[in-house]
Amino acid sequence: MKIAIFPGSFDPLTNGHLDIIKRGSQLFDELVVAVGINTSKTALFSTDEKVTLIKEAVDSLPNVRVVTMQGLTVNLFKKLGATTLVRGLRDEADYRYERQIAQMNHQMDKKVETIFLMARPQDTYVASSIIKEIAKMGGDVSQFVPQNVSEPLKAKFK
Amino acid sequence: MKIAIFPGSFDPLTNGHLDIIKRGSQLFDELVVAVGINTSKTALFSTDEKVTLIKEAVDSLPNVRVVTMQGLTVNLFKKLGATTLVRGLRDEADYRYERQIAQMNHQMDKKVETIFLMARPQDTYVASSIIKEIAKMGGDVSQFVPQNVSEPLKAKFK
Amino acid sequence: MKIAIFPGSFDPLTNGHLDIIKRGSQLFDELVVAVGINTSKTALFSTDEKVTLIKEAVDSLPNVRVVTMQGLTVNLFKKLGATTLVRGLRDEADYRYERQIAQMNHQMDKKVETIFLMARPQDTYVASSIIKEIAKMGGDVSQFVPQNVSEPLKAKFK
Amino acid sequence: MKIAIFPGSFDPLTNGHLDIIKRGSQLFDELVVAVGINTSKTALFSTDEKVTLIKEAVDSLPNVRVVTMQGLTVNLFKKLGATTLVRGLRDEADYRYERQIAQMNHQMDKKVETIFLMARPQDTYVASSIIKEIAKMGGDVSQFVPQNVSEPLKAKFK
Amino acid sequence: MKIAIFPGSFDPLTNGHLDIIKRGSQLFDELVVAVGINTSKTALFSTDEKVTLIKEAVDSLPNVRVVTMQGLTVNLFKKLGATTLVRGLRDEADYRYERQIAQMNHQMDKKVETIFLMARPQDTYVASSIIKEIAKMGGDVSQFVPQNVSEPLKAKFK
Amino acid sequence: MKIAIFPGSFDPLTNGHLDIIKRGSQLFDELVVAVGINTSKTALFSTDEKVTLIKEAVDSLPNVRVVTMQGLTVNLFKKLGATTLVRGLRDEADYRYERQIAQMNHQMDKKVETIFLMARPQDTYVASSIIKEIAKMGGDVSQFVPQNVSEPLKAKFK
Repeated sequence: MKIAIFPGSFDPLTNGHLDIIKRGSQLFDELVVAVGINTSKTALFSTDEKVTLIKEAVDSLPNVRVVTMQGLTVNLFKKLGATTLVRGLRDEADYRYERQIAQMNHQMDKKVETIFLMARPQDTYVASSIIKEIAKMGGDVSQFVPQNVSEPLKAKFK
Repeated sequence: MKIAIFPGSFDPLTNGHLDIIKRGSQLFDELVVAVGINTSKTALFSTDEKVTLIKEAVDSLPNVRVVTMQGLTVNLFKKLGATTLVRGLRDEADYRYERQIAQMNHQMDKKVETIFLMARPQDTYVASSIIKEIAKMGGDVSQFVPQNVSEPLKAKFK
Repeated sequence: MKIAIFPGSFDPLTNGHLDIIKRGSQLFDELVVAVGINTSKTALFSTDEKVTLIKEAVDSLPNVRVVTMQGLTVNLFKKLGATTLVRGLRDEADYRYERQIAQMNHQMDKKVETIFLMARPQDTYVASSIIKEIAKMGGDVSQFVPQNVSEPLKAKFK
Repeated sequence: MKIAIFPGSFDPLTNGHLDIIKRGSQLFDELVVAVGINTSKTALFSTDEKVTLIKEAVDSLPNVRVVTMQGLTVNLFKKLGATTLVRGLRDEADYRYERQIAQMNHQMDKKVETIFLMARPQDTYVASSIIKEIAKMGGDVSQFVPQNVSEPLKAKFK
Repeated sequence: MKIAIFPGSFDPLTNGHLDIIKRGSQLFDELVVAVGINTSKTALFSTDEKVTLIKEAVDSLPNVRVVTMQGLTVNLFKKLGATTLVRGLRDEADYRYERQIAQMNHQMDKKVETIFLMARPQDTYVASSIIKEIAKMGGDVSQFVPQNVSEPLKAKFK
Repeated sequence: MKIAIFPGSFDPLTNGHLDIIKRGSQLFDELVVAVGINTSKTALFSTDEKVTLIKEAVDSLPNVRVVTMQGLTVNLFKKLGATTLVRGLRDEADYRYERQIAQMNHQMDKKVETIFLMARPQDTYVASSIIKEIAKMGGDVSQFVPQNVSEPLKAKFK
C-alpha cells in the first residue's frame, strides 16, 4: 500500500490546498494531510481548528486522513510507513524553496521521495497569507477558500 | 494498475533521465518511457538507437517499458491506459516550460495528471544539448551519461 | 488623444492576445494592433490572413485598429502619433525579454513608454507556438484561440 | 477623466518611486499617490511625514495628488472613481508578487485594472529597505532618494 | 597585494560557506572572512563563537583571515586596503539579492568590485536557516556543516 | 602570474562586454579575451573582424590579450596556463545558463574556476542579438557598442 504525506501549515486551508489534496489522493492508496503543530503564536487558527476544517473539507475523499505533525517530516514518514511527500508548486519562488526542502529531506533519509503537482492557473495567486490580509481588512475571500472555511475565517476578524 | 509515462526525446539518454526513470518506476506499477519519434533531422541518434540504448540502461528495472511515441501525448495516454505523466525539473526554465505543457495537457484531457520530480543536484546542469556540444569538440562526457551510452555517443563524432 | 500600440506576430491570434487587446483598449483612446510583417518563411499565417483574423476578432471594439508594421517600432510611433506600447506578461521569461525590449525602445526614443498587463491565469500557458504544435498533431485547440481563428488554424494542417 | 492610483508604503520615497510617479502621471488625467497608513510600528517615517515628503517631491507635477489609504485598495478605487492601479517592476521577485496582488484585486473587483511600468535600469537595485539599512550605518544615500528626502532621512539616524 | 573580503553572518558556517572560502582564497593573495556583528538577538551563535568556529575550519588555509565587521562593507574595504568582495550564488534568489547589494556597494564606492562564485551543486540547497530549523527539531545536520561546527550546533538545542 | 580567460562570440563586441573586460583586467595579471571561431554561418562578423575590433577597443588596457578559440574552453586553459574564467551576468537567464556551463567545465577539469561579474544596470538590456536586429532595421545602435564598432556594424547592413 502506497501512502503519501501532504504536509503544511494550512492557516487556513485554501482552494489551492484542496485541489492538491484531491489530485494527490488519486495517485496513492492513502493521502495523509499533516498539519504542522503551531510553533509560533502568529497562526490565526489553532491546530485543532485547522484539523477540523480540513476534515470537513475532505469528507468526501475516502482515502484522505488528517493528522498533526511535530518535528521532522522524515520522522512522520517512518511512523506512517509512507513513501512519498506531495507538494504543490504555484510559482518559481515555490519551486526554489521546495527544491531545497526536498533535497534536504532526501539527504536525511534516502528513502524519502517528493513529488510535485503544478497548481491550477486559478490557484497560482492564492496564498493563505494574502487571504488573511484581505480578510483582516474586511474583504470578501469566500472565493479563495473551501466553503466551510469561509465563515470561520470571517469570524476571526470580527 | 497504475501506469505512468515519462516522455522525452532522449538524444541521448543522460544520467539525469535515468535517475528520473528509476525514481518514477518506484512510484507506479509500470513506468513507460516514451521516446518521441524524430520529426526533425537534427537529432543525433535515430529513434531505434535511442530505444535500444534506453532498454539497455533500464534492463534491471522490471516495471519499466520503452515505447515510441508520435503525435499528442494525450493519445498515448488513452492507448496505454496510463494515468500520469512523469517529468523532471532541473531549474526554473524547466519549471516554466513544464508548467505550460502540463496545463495544456490537462486542458486537452482533464484526466491527465502530471507529477514532477526534482533533479538531484549533480544532475541539474546535465542537458543532452550541452553533452552533445562537448562530445562534438572531443570532450569526455562519460560521467554525464549511463555507461552504455558513452561509447555510442563518442562514436557519433568520430 | 492617447494612442497606444500593441505589436506582435499573432501567428495566430490567441485568447491571451485578445484579452490584452480588450483591456488595453479601455486604457487609451485608440489601441492600434500592429502585425509585424513576416520576415521569415516560418510563419503559419500570411500577414494578410493575420490582419483579417484580428479584424474579425476585434470587430466589436470600436477604438481598436489593425495595421501592419515593418521595421522599428519607434518609427511606427512617430507615424501614428502614439505615446505608449502595450504588452502582456505571462511569466518570468516574458518579463525578462520585455524588460530588455522596453528599455531598448526607450533608449532609442525617450518619448516611448511601455505599459504591461498581466495575463489572466487561464492565459498564462497559452502560446502561439505550442498551439500550432498541438494543432499540427491533430489536437483540438479551439479553446485557446478566438472562435473565428479556430477553423482557419485547423485548415492549415489538413 | 481617467484616474489612476499608485499605492505604496513609501518609507521613504525613492528615486525609483518618483520615476514611476512621473511616468504614470503622463498616462492618466490624474495620478493619485496613495500612502498606506502605517499598521506596524516598524515604519521609519510617520504617515504624515511621508505625505509631506511626497507632496514636496511631486510639486511640479500638476496632475498628481497625494492621499492616505487604509484598508483594501479596491475600496479606494470606488471612492476616487479610479480605473487603474499603477505599479513598478524592478525584478522577477517584484513581478511574481505583483502578479499575485493584481490578480487578487481583479478577483475582488473585476473593474480594477493594473498596469506595470518597468523600473529604469539605474533604479532596479534601489529599495527603501536597503536605503534605510545603509543610512542607519551612516552611509550616504543622497543619490538614491529625491533631494528633499535626503536630509530628513539622514536626520532619522542622528 | 590583492585582498578580498567574504562578508556574511555565518550563523553557523556551512559547507557551502567553506567551499566559497577555499575557492576564494585561491583567487587572491589574502581572503578576509568578515563576520557581521550581530545586531539582532535572533542569532544562534555569538559573534565570538562564530569567529572561533570559522578560524578552526580555515586553519589549513594560510592566506585566510577572520575579522568582525560592523557598519558598511565599503568602510571595511578602506580599512583593509581590499579590492574585491567575494560572494557565492546558490540560486536565482541569491542572484537577485546579490545583484542589488553589489550595485549599491559600487554606487557608494566606485572602487569596490564584487565577484561571484557559483555554489557547487551539492551546496545549492544548504542554508544556515534551514540547517538550524532541522537541528532544532533534532535532525542530524552533520553532513551540511564543517566537522568542527557539528557538535557546537547540536549543543545549542540540548 | 594569474591569467584569466573571457570567452565569447562577440558578434559584435558591446559596451557590456567591454565593461566586463575592463573590470576583469583589474582582477588578474592578464586577461585573455577568447573569440570563439565561428562554427555556423550565421555570424555577422568574421572571426578576424571580431579580433580586430576587440583589439582596437582594448588598446588602452595593457594586460588584455585577444586570441581565437576553437574547441573546448578547458583545452585553452591548459594551453595558456590560465586559472580562471570570467563571465558577466545580465539577468536570471544568464545566471542559469552560466551556472550550467561553469559546473560542466569544473566537472571536466577540477582546476577550472569561473568568476562572475554583475553587468552594470545600463548594460543589462544590451545583447548582441538585439543590437544586430535593430541595426538591420536601420536603427541607431551607436550608444550600445564601443565607438570603433559603431561604423563597421552600420556598414554590414548597407
